[in-house]
Amino acid sequence: MEVRARAPGKIILAGEHAVVHGSTAVAASIDLCTYVSLRFPIPSDNDDSLKLQLKDMSLEFSWPVSRIKEVLPEVVSSLSPTPTSCSIETMKSIAALVEEQNIPEAKIGLATGVSAFLWLYTCIQGYKPATVVVTSELPLGSGLGSSAAFSVALSGALLAFSDSVSLDMSRQEWSVFGESDLELVNKWAFEGERIIHGKPSGIDNTVSTYGNMIKFRSGSLTRLKSNMPLRMLITNTKVGRNTKALVAGVSERTLRHPDAMSFVFNAVDSISKELSTIIQSPAPDDLSITEKEEKIEELMEMNQGLLQCMGVSHAVIETVLRTTLKYKLASKLTGAGGGGCVLTLLPTLLSGTVVDKVTAELESCGFQCLIAATGGKGVEVCFGGSA
Amino acid sequence: MEVRARAPGKIILAGEHAVVHGSTAVAASIDLCTYVSLRFPIPSDNDDSLKLQLKDMSLEFSWPVSRIKEVLPEVVSSLSPTPTSCSIETMKSIAALVEEQNIPEAKIGLATGVSAFLWLYTCIQGYKPATVVVTSELPLGSGLGSSAAFSVALSGALLAFSDSVSLDMSRQEWSVFGESDLELVNKWAFEGERIIHGKPSGIDNTVSTYGNMIKFRSGSLTRLKSNMPLRMLITNTKVGRNTKALVAGVSERTLRHPDAMSFVFNAVDSISKELSTIIQSPAPDDLSITEKEEKIEELMEMNQGLLQCMGVSHAVIETVLRTTLKYKLASKLTGAGGGGCVLTLLPTLLSGTVVDKVTAELESCGFQCLIAATGGKGVEVCFGGSA
Repeated sequence: MEVRARAPGKIILAGEHAVVHGSTAVAASIDLCTYVSLRFPIPSDNDDSLKLQLKDMSLEFSWPVSRIKEVLPEVVSSLSPTPTSCSIETMKSIAALVEEQNIPEAKIGLATGVSAFLWLYTCIQGYKPATVVVTSELPLGSGLGSSAAFSVALSGALLAFSDSVSLDMSRQEWSVFGESDLELVNKWAFEGERIIHGKPSGIDNTVSTYGNMIKFRSGSLTRLKSNMPLRMLITNTKVGRNTKALVAGVSERTLRHPDAMSFVFNAVDSISKELSTIIQSPAPDDLSITEKEEKIEELMEMNQGLLQCMGVSHAVIETVLRTTLKYKLASKLTGAGGGGCVLTLLPTLLSGTVVDKVTAELESCGFQCLIAATGGKGVEVCFGGSA
Repeated sequence: MEVRARAPGKIILAGEHAVVHGSTAVAASIDLCTYVSLRFPIPSDNDDSLKLQLKDMSLEFSWPVSRIKEVLPEVVSSLSPTPTSCSIETMKSIAALVEEQNIPEAKIGLATGVSAFLWLYTCIQGYKPATVVVTSELPLGSGLGSSAAFSVALSGALLAFSDSVSLDMSRQEWSVFGESDLELVNKWAFEGERIIHGKPSGIDNTVSTYGNMIKFRSGSLTRLKSNMPLRMLITNTKVGRNTKALVAGVSERTLRHPDAMSFVFNAVDSISKELSTIIQSPAPDDLSITEKEEKIEELMEMNQGLLQCMGVSHAVIETVLRTTLKYKLASKLTGAGGGGCVLTLLPTLLSGTVVDKVTAELESCGFQCLIAATGGKGVEVCFGGSA
């Protein structure tokens, strides 16, 4: 018995940082996914362990299910279709299970992800032995929502084999959950994100679950129906960011210059709203796709200027901007800034030669380049593992 | 009989472009000047020509005063202490006088300055033979107000030997005009600027005349009393700008995104106001000079982000920003953008070694670096030519 689930990463198209101060932001899914395969051993395998394989990193963790049962006896007693938060007590017990696995020092950042895995697995599947294999097209910790994609794909795979959701298990192709099942996946994934991030906004897991684009403001999320897929070049600068420090820096600047910054956040709000209007406008309307793309490019450039005004850019981001500008392409940072990833819109009519040239030039600077379509599907599952 | 006049250039500290859309802007004089020396020949010289020597360019223009009288007979009839505008008819006659001089093709941009010279000279001094020598510390056409400094210094020198102003001609040191004489200098200089620029804002000649700093908004100028001289590194990128096209670009962007741009202009307005408050605050107050400089640096960075949001930056400006950022120095473009000059605040406590290093690095990129103190004196004159 095997199920595979895949869930997309995300980008922030507009409004990062300003959203903390009440502005609208827009996020979109990208067609770069994290894949989770869940396989239960057949009885003759005589295997009673729970295995987690992180293929991209050639790491495998394994626990006898009896050990999990011993350390986390209370979890299965609460086994329920209702997503629940991990208590601090349980978190400590899970941390003990993770510590037993001797994660390499350089990969210690994975510990919270492994904790989230143990919590979600035991909550949804109890103490069954199984092998879970994770692969991903998303770079880790670069603001593309890799942890949410992991939480969503994992929740999707675990729920696919639970009584909580109803899926046609005979279909051996990628298929979507029903609306109420998606809600359940999203809620469990949010619990996973809480273990990984502490106080997640819920944006990343929502985009990864439902796909497409969402508009969010002051904690309320609105799903958008995009009529306009955008092709983005995503440049991962590989410069690590300290999101908390960047967010704090913007808040401090806001305290020092409340009037100016309030106008800046309002400007970002206008940009996000305008962007979501363009994205949702019916495909054949007054504006051609090229005109819409030009508007989006201008809004991206404006948003980037406002992010620089907030002080969250970085020399390495400017390098990407300069490089793409040479090819007359518009770019903006996405997410926290201070490094991380930069988005560059690739217009529909842009020649492949230009894409190759700009990519080559960015890669020669040591950056990682990914090309992604935005606004695609959310989480999907596939039984039998042949898709 | 000789008089020398000197008049400073200017920088825009905050608010360029946004000022066109109703925001406040702040300009400051810099201690880089244009010098005009005016000498009347003694009768035994037997020289009856009007000569204009542009020393920095090794150019000399010369007209027999009889030729000027022939072409511009009506000007001296209107010789008056009231500054008057040059009519289109007279402008054509002056253009004929300029054309006779065969200005080198590469320096054809000087033609309007030579026209302004002929207009101001004949209006104020009539058909007297004289030699006028011009030298300048200001790069031409790079947004530092070189034409206004020329108009102001020229008007100052011409008026110094007129009945319109009262000066103690025995003082052989740099001295200032009285308040009402300054007003006259400024008005004449504005007429010169009109010939050179068509529709000048009046900001450049006002700063050059009065020195110090001025705040301006919707056409009204307020002179500020700065209690805080700022030392600026001015990097001339030597990239030519098309000011009209840049201004038009911002207006077009404003038509496309009225809400967002309106907030951007309001943010700039707040920045300009905050900057002028800091600059005018009494020297010994709650904030140390270093704290004030840090605030100004932050406001410069914010203003630069907003200028990028307006779309008036340029790759070469970003190069300067990146270079100065390496030394933790804050910069912004000044003036029209799209090339031109970039300001970098040099804090009081900054070591000379850092200044030398950043200057060397910028010069190695092919830029011209100038160091200037802001908010200094306006136009001054000196008789006898020995100062």
